[in-house]
Amino acid sequence: MNSGYNLEAIEAAPLKDDLDIVIPTIRNLDFLEQWRPFFQQYHLIIVQDGDPSVKIKVPEGYDYELYNRNDINRILGPRASCISFKDGGCRCFGYMVSKKKYIFTIDDDCFVAKDPSGKEINVIAQHIRNLETPSTPYFFNTLYDPFREGTDFVRGYPFSLREGVPTAISHGLWLNIPDYDAPTQLVKPRERNTRYVDAVMTIPKGVLYPMCGMNLAFNRELIGPAMYFALMGEGQPIARYDDMWAGWATKVVCDHLGFGVKTGLPYLWHSKASNPFVNLKKEHSGIHWQEEMIPFFQNVQLTKEADTAAKCYLELSKLVREKLVKVDPYFVKMADAMVAWIEAWEELNPPSQKNDASAK
Amino acid sequence: MNSGYNLEAIEAAPLKDDLDIVIPTIRNLDFLEQWRPFFQQYHLIIVQDGDPSVKIKVPEGYDYELYNRNDINRILGPRASCISFKDGGCRCFGYMVSKKKYIFTIDDDCFVAKDPSGKEINVIAQHIRNLETPSTPYFFNTLYDPFREGTDFVRGYPFSLREGVPTAISHGLWLNIPDYDAPTQLVKPRERNTRYVDAVMTIPKGVLYPMCGMNLAFNRELIGPAMYFALMGEGQPIARYDDMWAGWATKVVCDHLGFGVKTGLPYLWHSKASNPFVNLKKEHSGIHWQEEMIPFFQNVQLTKEADTAAKCYLELSKLVREKLVKVDPYFVKMADAMVAWIEAWEELNPPSQKNDASAK
Repeated sequence: MNSGYNLEAIEAAPLKDDLDIVIPTIRNLDFLEQWRPFFQQYHLIIVQDGDPSVKIKVPEGYDYELYNRNDINRILGPRASCISFKDGGCRCFGYMVSKKKYIFTIDDDCFVAKDPSGKEINVIAQHIRNLETPSTPYFFNTLYDPFREGTDFVRGYPFSLREGVPTAISHGLWLNIPDYDAPTQLVKPRERNTRYVDAVMTIPKGVLYPMCGMNLAFNRELIGPAMYFALMGEGQPIARYDDMWAGWATKVVCDHLGFGVKTGLPYLWHSKASNPFVNLKKEHSGIHWQEEMIPFFQNVQLTKEADTAAKCYLELSKLVREKLVKVDPYFVKMADAMVAWIEAWEELNPPSQKNDASAK
Repeated sequence: MNSGYNLEAIEAAPLKDDLDIVIPTIRNLDFLEQWRPFFQQYHLIIVQDGDPSVKIKVPEGYDYELYNRNDINRILGPRASCISFKDGGCRCFGYMVSKKKYIFTIDDDCFVAKDPSGKEINVIAQHIRNLETPSTPYFFNTLYDPFREGTDFVRGYPFSLREGVPTAISHGLWLNIPDYDAPTQLVKPRERNTRYVDAVMTIPKGVLYPMCGMNLAFNRELIGPAMYFALMGEGQPIARYDDMWAGWATKVVCDHLGFGVKTGLPYLWHSKASNPFVNLKKEHSGIHWQEEMIPFFQNVQLTKEADTAAKCYLELSKLVREKLVKVDPYFVKMADAMVAWIEAWEELNPPSQKNDASAK
């Protein structure tokens, strides 16, 4: 498909003024040393989780801003309670304070992976390629991403759908330690992902998927207000579902607004598995509740009036309050947090700033 | 995922008594020489298209039955009109006369491909692996086929859906000449598919895809009666949509009955592009009509009473007659042919023979 995009130019100048890297952490960011050739030209937003008195070291030469819990409380006031504490979900504060078009977020136990030819993978360049080319959510293309060089739409793909739709989310994958839940970690402690699947594909409309926050990029103008990593961690009965929640919500909102979600390349190297016993404790409510949360999201109907990500998300908060409270009273707190999140987002990103663009 | 299937055993003894290879052709089957290590232990059903007086040569050592147009007319009588003439769609006659559980169908310009390690790909072994392991149509797994060795369901995949559903269809891909329509062939005459994507995935429920008949396997007990390659070719206003039609119809029926459809591996080597000028003539109505046929299939609602593939297909024929006639009067002939196809199928495959199994 001749998409009209200059892929070489994207590769050469990967929009360094249009993308922030958001990193949640509790430790020194030594992992950035290995990423230097790929990340150093970008601005970092570091969200420090846990004890705010800990001093986090960032390798020299990086341009960054760092927020600890005290900063979050100061900036958001009473609404700060919507940002999770002692949970990777705190990263979404970084999405809110960014002023860029694109966000790339990564965990600090992830490193540069190599493709099968041995070449180091430029994750950001691939995410940008995914985000800057259209998605095709309305019909499946058997040769995968039709906008990639050397491939196209196959015979039988309707011509009326070949223009595609704007891409809002690019979900990357992980070599080495796969993103398994605690039960699978316990059953298969030695399983490693060694398979490099050379594909990017659109997740079709109406289909949900487990979105992992470890290697994720998105267009915050299109979908930012729905990319809330939920209320998890300390003080809440659930953890490790922050990204899942955001994945279900953003997919429903993208489907409603006509935006696309891609998954596949780029891979990074996930270095170590988190403790499955600790994870099991964090996850057990989620493992139970996802059996009701997922059907809830599968059946969400948003109205025509919801024509921006923020409006969609407020409608979603009402539906959560109404329908998920029967699962657990926690979902009332969640609905409150969703509203606080949108209020905080809009305060930090007034509409005049072009954020939260309409779908029209 | 510990699927309970012995994949090694499948590899070693790939169900040779349970699978027929169906080949439509107009020429000597010299291409079978290269396939000998992989195909010779299977029974072939050859459907000779075009002039029945032509004598087709089959390499020695193969066990086969061959049907030309005279045979089809003799066996099906007046219902023979549902089998296309001068179109690859004639192959579906072979599905009807088979008595096996599985069908693999291949075009005679397709050869053995190699995987990236240089090993020749055993297409049938891979198709059987796809068909004998469950599909997961209700939620997308980002690490692709969870039943493959070395991978599993990722964090956030509902446990209630991990059993999967029976797989009815395995759609394989093509290296070298991609399956493009005539306009794309004309625009990109030199494009070759060189990308080996090492993945098998379930096409989610509710999502249609362009099913190509070049490298296709299916479970005829589950889906056979819906695998009608439509009325195309000589005497009809449309060609080269036989497999597309079957793909839309079988996907809708699989979704309704709770069966799965996979696409991806195995690859074969597609040796030569057909003439794009001839193809354009054959395809032009289809290119136009698919813009209405696809929405039609996307919106099909089958009833609870339709609990077998044959019953679903008869319901579908009524909907075609009712809703597609506005596109072209041809669709009345198509609806008639769909009914004739099911009548012929049931005559050759009486229910006692365990074909057309209920979804229950």
